[in-house]
Amino acid sequence: MSRPGQREFFTVKTVSEAFTGFRPSRRTRAETTAIDEAFGRVPAEALHAPHALPGFARATVDGFAVRAADTYGASEGLPSYLDLAGEVRMGLPPEVEVRSGTAVAIATGAPLPSGADAVLKVEHTQSATPELLEVLKPVTPGEGLVRADEDAAPGHALAKPGRPLRAQDLGMLAAVGITELPVYARPRVAIVSTGDELVPADAQSLSLGQVRDATAPALTALIREAGGEPEFIGIVPDDRDALTTTLRGLLDHFDVLVVSAGSSVGSRDETAAAIASLGEPGIWCHGLAFRPGKPTLLADCGGVPVIGLPGNPRSALVVFRLIGIPIVRMVGGCTEPPREPRVTAVLARDLPSAAGRLDVVQVRLSGGRAEPLFGSSSLLSILTAADGYVVVPEAATGLAAGSEVEVTLYR
Amino acid sequence: MSRPGQREFFTVKTVSEAFTGFRPSRRTRAETTAIDEAFGRVPAEALHAPHALPGFARATVDGFAVRAADTYGASEGLPSYLDLAGEVRMGLPPEVEVRSGTAVAIATGAPLPSGADAVLKVEHTQSATPELLEVLKPVTPGEGLVRADEDAAPGHALAKPGRPLRAQDLGMLAAVGITELPVYARPRVAIVSTGDELVPADAQSLSLGQVRDATAPALTALIREAGGEPEFIGIVPDDRDALTTTLRGLLDHFDVLVVSAGSSVGSRDETAAAIASLGEPGIWCHGLAFRPGKPTLLADCGGVPVIGLPGNPRSALVVFRLIGIPIVRMVGGCTEPPREPRVTAVLARDLPSAAGRLDVVQVRLSGGRAEPLFGSSSLLSILTAADGYVVVPEAATGLAAGSEVEVTLYR
Repeated sequence: MSRPGQREFFTVKTVSEAFTGFRPSRRTRAETTAIDEAFGRVPAEALHAPHALPGFARATVDGFAVRAADTYGASEGLPSYLDLAGEVRMGLPPEVEVRSGTAVAIATGAPLPSGADAVLKVEHTQSATPELLEVLKPVTPGEGLVRADEDAAPGHALAKPGRPLRAQDLGMLAAVGITELPVYARPRVAIVSTGDELVPADAQSLSLGQVRDATAPALTALIREAGGEPEFIGIVPDDRDALTTTLRGLLDHFDVLVVSAGSSVGSRDETAAAIASLGEPGIWCHGLAFRPGKPTLLADCGGVPVIGLPGNPRSALVVFRLIGIPIVRMVGGCTEPPREPRVTAVLARDLPSAAGRLDVVQVRLSGGRAEPLFGSSSLLSILTAADGYVVVPEAATGLAAGSEVEVTLYR
Repeated sequence: MSRPGQREFFTVKTVSEAFTGFRPSRRTRAETTAIDEAFGRVPAEALHAPHALPGFARATVDGFAVRAADTYGASEGLPSYLDLAGEVRMGLPPEVEVRSGTAVAIATGAPLPSGADAVLKVEHTQSATPELLEVLKPVTPGEGLVRADEDAAPGHALAKPGRPLRAQDLGMLAAVGITELPVYARPRVAIVSTGDELVPADAQSLSLGQVRDATAPALTALIREAGGEPEFIGIVPDDRDALTTTLRGLLDHFDVLVVSAGSSVGSRDETAAAIASLGEPGIWCHGLAFRPGKPTLLADCGGVPVIGLPGNPRSALVVFRLIGIPIVRMVGGCTEPPREPRVTAVLARDLPSAAGRLDVVQVRLSGGRAEPLFGSSSLLSILTAADGYVVVPEAATGLAAGSEVEVTLYR
């Protein structure tokens, strides 16, 4: 008759140690993407302006290109007069130049004709005759225009390598004609589920004792959020050989492996043994000083990060959000991830914790108060009911009710 | 000889008025999506648990299923003894039951055998003989397990209609076997650029006076961020008839039209005239009390929102982020959008504003200080240099240097 075992975790690390110390070498290669598909992608190199932008001095107001000196002293009571010498047409090179005593009509965005050094707003003028302009207010040189290199000088850096491209970055790249660009390929992330109790989420009927695989579809979402390309491999039996064969076959084709382990100690042991055999340097930690998520395993198998998640879906998702997302981002070249939305709130209850352990506590927000949601780590409903979470740092032995906390919001 | 016109905006509204008053009726239809593609999609109806979850009482620890009463009074000094009556195998219905005086070995996640009302942790037991268990600590009924409906009772709401699906929501849906679900179709958003000075972003060489279309690729990104499906139609000349024909042809095929207008007053007039002819009730506002972004036009053409953006790329992107994204979300059924990341910072300079006007000021963050970035609204570099923006509300006449401000961060 078998008896459930009680195994110790022999290589427990703190979450801080994992962030700084677990650094598998795998990085995705660079690939070329079209600008229309580049939102959120990570530039693989610095991109520079090949020429000045806008490339020519442009009017920023509707009005008249002039020599500023011709307007000095003009006022409503004592206007200056300029001869209207023509107009600049939008999108075309100017056909006239501005000489002393003349003005040329110009619309916002049109190129400044030569000879002009300012643009007079139409509101500060009046028509004396169709060919004579009354100037009611002076302008100074440079007024009413942008210089040819005011938006970007040649060589100016347009996108930071490692920071996901934002909408405005794409606008700037388009403005200088960069419509294809080098980005890190999305990390391919394999998800393997283990656990003899698991059946696929689309199983129609379950026997007593079976549960649907809830973790894999949720991991798929978190991997996408991290910029990765998830692939669900399937459910593998709690068997060291079967798992080893599956994982070994994946190592050549994926940038990160995620094993959503069975929840029992025995299942975790099988998973650990299978991962240990995959390659050097191997298991980096088996056990994290983290609640919920102690049974987390991190391994470096020939440079490929392998993440063994706890069997409880809730723990697995909390661990993957905190530890897995940064690993996928690292492999995908993202060194400056977007910030998570956070709000401050008043903690509604005491949160006890142990020094040296990091706790992630789910909370519901209500009227500026953060109400912790407690319950078994097997309950996914704690996560779906939460608006966000509070981190009790390793240095703290807990947080007192009434203290102000930062709540990271789910999105 | 032409003279640039100076037109008034006759139907200026405030940004608050736009948020509450501009409500075109268009909504996308519901469609079915697979759970693996459902991250961030908006449920079109409430989804309920078809059965209890986990569906059976499960152990949450590795140990022994027992009748709690059999353990009362047990201690290390005076253990109780129970006969080991077998084990529950993971994923299979229990073959044994727990009778008074017996215990059944069970792993985390396995189904509780009948007769048992608690699970004793393996750490609180010792083997006396292979068939006799020493109990070192008592348990109470319900300890070491979750009830059959503890994660969700039948009929429990699993996803909120109108709120984009989060990773954990997908996990919960998978757990109850919902792997295809009704979501609002992504709003199809057409982008039309106008402006005689514009050439496509991939144009190889430009004449003096021409500029590449920087706005359309950036809008593509913002529409994706809003959950929409962008399609860039092309650059249409600044000509009322050409624009009218193009827009009329799009009305039947898109849920939202976005016109990135030319920057001159004349170009804006052509755009407004074209939009005015598209359908009832027509133009809702032409002019917003908003900086940068006064030349914004909003129209409701037979229920389809039409957004006319300012010609300056920077203004266009600021307006679209603030006004356009909520419109796309509304059409796509999203009533509870994810929050933006924000930080508080100390304003480094005075920000003057006019009462009744909303100002969006780009800022760079450095050591807790928000440094405003000023410059012509034609400069996209102000946006790319910014870490986020500060909103000066309509009620304020400005913000003083040294005051604490909320900075919405770009991602």
